Order: sequence, then structure tokens, then C-alpha cells
Amino acid sequence: MSNNKLQTLKGFRDFLPQKMTIRNEVIKRLRGVFEKYGFEELQTPSLEYQEVLLGKYGEEAEKLMYLFKDQGGRDVGMKYDLTVPLARVASSYPELPIPFKRYQIQPVWRAENTQKGRYREFYQCDVDTIGSSSPMVDAEIIAVVDESLRVLGFTNYKIKVNSRDVLFAIMEKASIPKNNWLKAIQSIDKLDKKSQDEVKKELIDKKFSAREVKNLFEFLKSAKPDDFLQKTIDLAKKLGVTKNLVFDSNLARGLDYYTGPIFESVVNEPKIGSITGGGRYDNLLKTLGAPDLPATGTTIGLDRVCDVIEELNLWPNLSSTSVKTLVTIFSPETFSQSVELAKILREVNINTELYPEDSAKLEKQLKYADKKGIPYVIILGPEELKNKKIQLKNLKTNGQIETTIENAISLIK
Amino acid sequence: MSNNKLQTLKGFRDFLPQKMTIRNEVIKRLRGVFEKYGFEELQTPSLEYQEVLLGKYGEEAEKLMYLFKDQGGRDVGMKYDLTVPLARVASSYPELPIPFKRYQIQPVWRAENTQKGRYREFYQCDVDTIGSSSPMVDAEIIAVVDESLRVLGFTNYKIKVNSRDVLFAIMEKASIPKNNWLKAIQSIDKLDKKSQDEVKKELIDKKFSAREVKNLFEFLKSAKPDDFLQKTIDLAKKLGVTKNLVFDSNLARGLDYYTGPIFESVVNEPKIGSITGGGRYDNLLKTLGAPDLPATGTTIGLDRVCDVIEELNLWPNLSSTSVKTLVTIFSPETFSQSVELAKILREVNINTELYPEDSAKLEKQLKYADKKGIPYVIILGPEELKNKKIQLKNLKTNGQIETTIENAISLIK
Repeated sequence: MSNNKLQTLKGFRDFLPQKMTIRNEVIKRLRGVFEKYGFEELQTPSLEYQEVLLGKYGEEAEKLMYLFKDQGGRDVGMKYDLTVPLARVASSYPELPIPFKRYQIQPVWRAENTQKGRYREFYQCDVDTIGSSSPMVDAEIIAVVDESLRVLGFTNYKIKVNSRDVLFAIMEKASIPKNNWLKAIQSIDKLDKKSQDEVKKELIDKKFSAREVKNLFEFLKSAKPDDFLQKTIDLAKKLGVTKNLVFDSNLARGLDYYTGPIFESVVNEPKIGSITGGGRYDNLLKTLGAPDLPATGTTIGLDRVCDVIEELNLWPNLSSTSVKTLVTIFSPETFSQSVELAKILREVNINTELYPEDSAKLEKQLKYADKKGIPYVIILGPEELKNKKIQLKNLKTNGQIETTIENAISLIK
Repeated sequence: MSNNKLQTLKGFRDFLPQKMTIRNEVIKRLRGVFEKYGFEELQTPSLEYQEVLLGKYGEEAEKLMYLFKDQGGRDVGMKYDLTVPLARVASSYPELPIPFKRYQIQPVWRAENTQKGRYREFYQCDVDTIGSSSPMVDAEIIAVVDESLRVLGFTNYKIKVNSRDVLFAIMEKASIPKNNWLKAIQSIDKLDKKSQDEVKKELIDKKFSAREVKNLFEFLKSAKPDDFLQKTIDLAKKLGVTKNLVFDSNLARGLDYYTGPIFESVVNEPKIGSITGGGRYDNLLKTLGAPDLPATGTTIGLDRVCDVIEELNLWPNLSSTSVKTLVTIFSPETFSQSVELAKILREVNINTELYPEDSAKLEKQLKYADKKGIPYVIILGPEELKNKKIQLKNLKTNGQIETTIENAISLIK
């Protein structure tokens, strides 16, 4: 019989159990950090009205959105990011305590070109504070990013900070007309991937004058944090962000809505580019039709983080399965005792799988455990039953010992 | 300014932070049980090809599915349950170790009539084993249900079991033609909500003869578990399911694909009907176009469980926020010391929110903490700084003490 009918949808992917152990561990550690800093979890629906989704972005984004009519004839769409739903929540619940510090870890959907290795469903992990203009809340976002990277095991990274206000002041000084500022910013943003000459050429191609470009780069080089950014940096240091925080006047971030400090973190090794990015966006909520609240926050690229940890085997001790031990069935005669043994192991909170068939060859059961990456296998045959012992096999070292149940429990734990 | 633009989509809902503390705790406890029994997590995409989704259900279900064309012209849809994706996974990965024991906690979408208080996006939580015909795996599903209900704090519940084979044998004995069996089963399934007389009338209306109906109820009354179900029950008992397991020949379950044992659990108090349901479905995967593997499993109604726990305040000690303490800012002069204090509390893993503004009235800050349900508030004024003490306020008891940081830490913990 043909199985061709059942295909995974193009651009989408499953997370089989061996991927879930990493994802769950990453999420658990990140949640721990977010909550330690006083952020609380929010979840919003997958679908929103189209008019809510389309408020923020231009045509480019609209092309990537999954938009359709529901059964009631409503124009709906699958969420494209977590910022628009946050604005909608701020609007729907005027009674929310302000400042509202939330984190959100949920999938979003974009009909991206899959040639680039991008998936059309991916998890965003956002941490934002709305309702405060204090540099303190920007500093906290930076501290959260720093501690998140540390708890994930990254050591060689930089958190780059800059401010849109610093960039705007430079533009003004370089006599660039206001309506061209964003165009210039989008080119400056490429300085981490392209050479200065390439970016200069791009600006010339965009009809910036040679003088403007020369001034721009000169002022970028000598730029300093403004007052607000300096306060943010000082407070972040006070919160414990010391060695990895750098001011980088070339950091620009592409999105048009940032208004103050902007942040981005890059891991030096491996070369995967930025893994977090964010900044202050004081006007966005109002623009979207939500209450006029200042806001700041960051995104952490959850799928990217998981992929990197997996590809580079950064967590060599993390098992590919949540199962700790397989209790095998030696023969139909010992089946009942193996069931009892599984019960005992579960009672002491050892994740235990019991092989369900009573007449499978032991070799087949061992292969099954090996394939799944289960670290321990227990064998309980007539000999062991007589001696009130069990055989404990460690599939990593291939060692096997005859021991008591009590001892096996402490070895497995 | 009008906020009318930003509405939550009809039939959908947000989970604000105060709902998330319950949800996260429920999911954490359930995961713990599933993994203890050797089930591993699987996640599948929200979207599937329509031909995959439409394989299992009739027109009734199709009407409730969110189906549309994607940007590439593909006919796609949002997943309607977690069973079809499981079949697709079994088909997509022939290399999966068998038996494959997986749990899956993800949203599904159904354009239900919202008048009934149903949401169009809700979480399903499924636990299934595919690839084994052993009654052992059915018994494990029952044990997982039992332990799940216990760890959630339910005490007064029943796990009802029956078998489609038992029901089929009754039909045969009652001389009901095979093509009417499912019709009869769908009526029997209503016996927990309707009286016997009502169900008898329904069967007569469905053109069953008076003699068939009489025989049917007589045989239902005297029915006993068949061999397979008895083995399942005995093994479940061996796994520790003792007092809440009952054989109930009236349990029928509506879905047409069950083949052997069927299970359902009902909480006696409050009257919310069944909160888990499942059974063996040995032919379904093959029917869907997946490999021909036997299977058994259960669904746990996650949203319903959360709603009940919340409505009945079953977990009175669970905080409505993950934040443990708010460090207030007494005045701009003490701001810096409050920041340091927040850092210290976070270092010892106390979830700490720092009020971000340095000139808000203390009263306002206390109201904020109270509104969010934060249990502790710390005040650090010039007096306390001089004495190297802090004020610790317990918002539940309204008690306030002056104490050292070390003592405050141990009190909060």
C-alpha cells in the first residue's frame, strides 16, 4: 500500500522526540530567566483579524502572511509575529497592570522562500515591557538577553547596543534630509555582513551624495552613546551585564519602528549571525491603534538557538530521549515481575519504558533501546529472580552488572 | 483615540499571565507523568495538506476545518486533531522505533459554534502508543490517565472501561444487523446523559425493533469484560490503578474507529462530564494511508482541566503570578540601592520585579503589586539603608517587618 498520500507540508517540519529534549530544555531555561526578571507569560491565539495583522507592516510582509476567510466570512490570518498580538492585548484589556512585562513563546507563520532554509512555521520568543519610559526597563531587557545566553551555554558572544537617537543625530549632523534617514539606516544595518566600501557604494546607488556618505561614516566612527543610552548601559552593568556589552554605532536594525536604544547579540563562534534583536519602540502601539504606551523588548531566535545547540553538540550530556531506562521482558514467565519492577522504578520518579511484548527476542529489545538512546536497560530473567537481583546494562559504556533493585535505582539516578 | 480596530477574533481567546500559571503547572505535571511512563514528546506543524486532514472524518468535520489555499496554490488546512498528524508522522518516518510512544500537547482548530461556550482554538493533549497489540500498552494508557488525574488533585473520579468487542458481541447476540452496530453504539453512548427510556426511544426512532432494543439492554446489563479487556484491567491494576477503575458496559464512545478497549474518565464532582477519553484503534492508521500499525491512546481535555481547576479554586496556594516579590523604589536617591537589591534576589533565584520608575508614589507601587497578586513587596528607604535593613511586606497577610536581606530571602523562599 502506498504512503504517498501522507506528506509533511512543504516548508513545515515535525519535531520528533529527539529534537524535543533540546527544545524543552532551552524553553525551560529561558522561562527561568524571564520569570526571574519579573516577566510573566502571555499566550495569544494563532488567528487574528486581518485588519489587526495588516496594521504594522507594508506589502512585503502582507505577501508572506497566511490570510483567508473563515466560515463566518471574516477576513482572518495566522499571526506573523508576537508584537502585533501584544498591541492587540494592550488594546483589548485596558485593565492590565502597567508596566506590563510579558514573555511569549509561540509559533508564527510566514510563507518564506524555503530555498533559504527557512521554515514557514517557527517559534518566536519575545520579551517586552510596555508602559515605561525608564532606561531601567531597557537595561533589564539587556540583562535578560545576557543571562539567557549564559544559561544556554554560550560564552563567546557580544551584546551590541546603539540608539536610533544617536543615528538620527548623526544623520542630522551629516545634513542628510529626514526623509532619507531610514534608507541610510537600512544600509548601515548591513555593515556586519558587508564591507564599508560595499555599503558606501550602496548608499551612492541610493542617490546619497559623496559628501553625505563621507560625513556619515566619519560621524559614525566618532559616535558616543547619548544620555539615555548611557543610563541604560550603566544600569545594565549594575544588573550584572559586564564583559559582553559593547556600544556599536554601526548597529542599526532594519525595522522602521525603533525609537531609542536598539540591541542585538551575536555569537562569535559559530558564525550564525545575530541570535537576539530588539529595541525601544515608543510609538508603535499607538500607531497600531492600541493605547499610547512606550515599549521596549527583544526577540530570541528560539529555533536557531536549538539548531545551533544540536548541530554543534553544545550539550553533549543531554539525552536524545526523556526515557531513562527500558525494562525488558525476558520471557512470558517473567513478564509479571518486569511489570512490577517498572512500577517500582516509576514510583521513585525514574522515567521508565516497559517493553510491551512478552515474546520479543532480548536482542531486538536492546536494539530498540539503543536506537532511541535510552541510557539504561534492565534484564530480569529466571536466574536473577532466584537471586533477587537484576542485570543493569549501561548502553553508553556497554557495561553490565548484576545488582539489587535499590542499587540500580541509585545508579540510574 | 478609538481602539475599536484591535479586537480579539470571535471564538478565540488570550491566556493572560494569571491564566498561564495554572496552565503551565498543569502541563508540567502531565509531562512528568507521561515521561515517567516512557512517553516522549512530539510536535507537528499547525498546517497539513488537506488530503491528509480529510482522510479520516466525514463532511461534518470538514465543515469545521479551517481550509484554504496557500501562496503556492497548495490546498492546506489547520490541524483538526492530533491523531491524523500522528498517522502522517508514522508514514513520513519509516525509521521510527516501534513501539512509538508519544505525547503531544498542541492547539487544534475547529470552527465550532461558539454559542456552546466552545473555543475555536483549543489545546489537545494526546498520549498514544502505536505498533503494539499487547494489552500492556492499553493498561499503561489507563495508568497514565489515573496518575494524571491524581497529580492534578482530582480525588473523586472514575475511569470507565469497556471494549468495542464486548459491544459487538452483544449486538450479535441481540441479532442486530452489522450495518446498524455503529448507530446503536452512538445511542448507547448517551446513557451517561440520558435516561434508559430516552435512549430506548431514540433506538426505536432509529428503526430498531422493540425486540432488538429489549435484548440489547438485557445483554448490556449482564455483560462481562472479554479476555483482552480482562487482561488489560488486570495489568492496569498491577501498574497501581486500583480503586477508580470500573467496567461499564454502557460506555460506548461515539467515534467509529475504535476496535478494542475504550476508556473514559469522569469526575464526580464537579459535574463536568468526561475529562479524558480514548481507546484502541487498530485499523485507523492503515485506513489513513499510514503503515498498518495497531494503536491505542487517550486524549486529556487540557483546557477543560485548567478551567475546572481555576473555577473551583482547586489549587488555592497557586499564585496568579510567577513574580515572587516587587522591589519598590522609595525615591530617586535610593533607586540605585533598590537595583542592587533586585540583583541580589535574582541571584538566589527569587523571581523579582523591580519597579522601573524612580518617582512613583509608594502607594501606587503597592497597588500595582496587589493587582498582580505579587505576594511580597520590599521597601528600601533612607532609614532602612542607614540601619542596613529592609521593610518586607506580605500582601496576603498585610503584615510588615523590618529585617535583614538574608532573613527576607529565607522568608520569601
